[in-house]
Amino acid sequence: MADRLDQFRQFREKMNQRILDEGNLSINRFFSLDGKAYEPGSVDALTKEFAGLSASMVLRCDDCIAYHVIRAKELGASNEQLFEIFNVGLIIGGSIVIPHLRRAAALLDELDESK
Amino acid sequence: MADRLDQFRQFREKMNQRILDEGNLSINRFFSLDGKAYEPGSVDALTKEFAGLSASMVLRCDDCIAYHVIRAKELGASNEQLFEIFNVGLIIGGSIVIPHLRRAAALLDELDESK
Amino acid sequence: MADRLDQFRQFREKMNQRILDEGNLSINRFFSLDGKAYEPGSVDALTKEFAGLSASMVLRCDDCIAYHVIRAKELGASNEQLFEIFNVGLIIGGSIVIPHLRRAAALLDELDESK
Amino acid sequence: MADRLDQFRQFREKMNQRILDEGNLSINRFFSLDGKAYEPGSVDALTKEFAGLSASMVLRCDDCIAYHVIRAKELGASNEQLFEIFNVGLIIGGSIVIPHLRRAAALLDELDESK
Amino acid sequence: MADRLDQFRQFREKMNQRILDEGNLSINRFFSLDGKAYEPGSVDALTKEFAGLSASMVLRCDDCIAYHVIRAKELGASNEQLFEIFNVGLIIGGSIVIPHLRRAAALLDELDESK
Amino acid sequence: MADRLDQFRQFREKMNQRILDEGNLSINRFFSLDGKAYEPGSVDALTKEFAGLSASMVLRCDDCIAYHVIRAKELGASNEQLFEIFNVGLIIGGSIVIPHLRRAAALLDELDESK
Repeated sequence: MADRLDQFRQFREKMNQRILDEGNLSINRFFSLDGKAYEPGSVDALTKEFAGLSASMVLRCDDCIAYHVIRAKELGASNEQLFEIFNVGLIIGGSIVIPHLRRAAALLDELDESK
Repeated sequence: MADRLDQFRQFREKMNQRILDEGNLSINRFFSLDGKAYEPGSVDALTKEFAGLSASMVLRCDDCIAYHVIRAKELGASNEQLFEIFNVGLIIGGSIVIPHLRRAAALLDELDESK
Repeated sequence: MADRLDQFRQFREKMNQRILDEGNLSINRFFSLDGKAYEPGSVDALTKEFAGLSASMVLRCDDCIAYHVIRAKELGASNEQLFEIFNVGLIIGGSIVIPHLRRAAALLDELDESK
Repeated sequence: MADRLDQFRQFREKMNQRILDEGNLSINRFFSLDGKAYEPGSVDALTKEFAGLSASMVLRCDDCIAYHVIRAKELGASNEQLFEIFNVGLIIGGSIVIPHLRRAAALLDELDESK
Repeated sequence: MADRLDQFRQFREKMNQRILDEGNLSINRFFSLDGKAYEPGSVDALTKEFAGLSASMVLRCDDCIAYHVIRAKELGASNEQLFEIFNVGLIIGGSIVIPHLRRAAALLDELDESK
Repeated sequence: MADRLDQFRQFREKMNQRILDEGNLSINRFFSLDGKAYEPGSVDALTKEFAGLSASMVLRCDDCIAYHVIRAKELGASNEQLFEIFNVGLIIGGSIVIPHLRRAAALLDELDESK
């Protein structure tokens, strides 16, 4: 299980570097803006991760959901809190969110087991 | 300006009532779940509104954005905070979010003027 | 109220003709396929309208919803049946479908009044 | 081939149970509403599955498509009928539906072979 | 008719300025990246507008479609060329693109009349 | 790596044939329109592939992206050009496009290695 998580992280890191190395200035700047969007400001970092998580759920992007779940856990989110945000995503996005919710719940369990 | 906001609220109230009066039990239960999704629990009410707002922005639903902006302001959100959540929605959802961001900013100004 | 419905129909007819007159063969063929998709075959016409309606709801296309609601009523659908299909669209598509559900319910009432 | 189908069903069952066990009341109620949306009422069960199928196709959710195809077959739908509903989804949703149509057709053949 | 076009441009300009004046650094940088994405590079400016137009069509964003149609006309695109790109958007995005195609065709005629 | 690409092509060919053999006239005509949408006309073939690519990116369809990247390379597109179109898709569609951009960049490298 932990292998799948490692694979995801490694492909992510490797391809992000590959894309940055291409030297398309605009893409590189977008990647920088993407990273900064979740830094604390008037709104704290965990709240921004929750906002990113609900948006990723309704857009049904597994990789994005995984990223925000991992970050939220690192920032101290409990599973109970994550499920309340999952619920916001589920109510807004409907039953087509459910397959992604299943994979998000499986990821949560992998993260808890790998501690 | 305030007229447009009132019209939005009146149509919303009237048609919600019309739908509930139809007596489709499942739709009525969904409306109830929708209302409860933003009640405070392990996650506070404002954070849930922010999560609802970012999800509404990336799905580009003006009525939903308006609802969450109004609720977030009622719960004490500052414009600076709202713009940080707008930014999360913009980065995740891309430039197609911009027309909705324009209307959200116009709504913010209407709300500030009508105080 | 009936005026708004007439306006919708007139703009629709006028612009469909404008597009066909442009003479882009592929677009014209697509319009023809679009019309034929709802003709009865192994599946009857009303069931196809219901399938078109639920798909239009989850994609949140007001004009498409209006078209399929009008056609379904012409084919004998009751409001109770339409609300059951609205419910399928609502459960699959989530609360962002609600603003479109409000407008669909308002259209139903306009259609009933204009009889 | 039948293995892949079994895997899908097992992961689905296991994670649905995992999610229900978390005890988030709102998510559990939504799951219940989701199940009830396809029960017969004024509209029969198969028509509701067809409405769910076309909506799942245009939203391009493979797991949802698989679920509704399996249910429609259980309720007696012929492949000819399913392809007519696939066509409704294809015309409404466009060529981006095609990769999902390929997988839906492959699933149909798996289901026919496993009988 | 030209009034509607002017209104669109004025609201766009006014609200873009309003958003930039808010001083959210990340949003302002995103607006800058958005403008630069269509500047000529290895790919010429008109081709980038066509790529922006097809993407805007399949995402069904009327304001974005209007922007790219106007820019493409300024860069010398013929209506015949625009309809070929409309066709790409229609085939990829399906019949739900049609209401936006109608409005795009109406805009083309407004632009031709206002010359 | 080249194996994965071959597998994609083989499944695509096999299932397209399976679908055509079903004999649903409307689906078969749609497949024909889909193929013709990218033939040169007033707009050249490569520009149409770029328009198809940006639309596929914002709709986040990996198979569609792969198809248009392969076709664009066959028509002589450089990686620098492809990344400029990737950037258009990224700016319009936002950070949820990034997982697909990673896979598109990996595909580009596979194509370059298999030459």
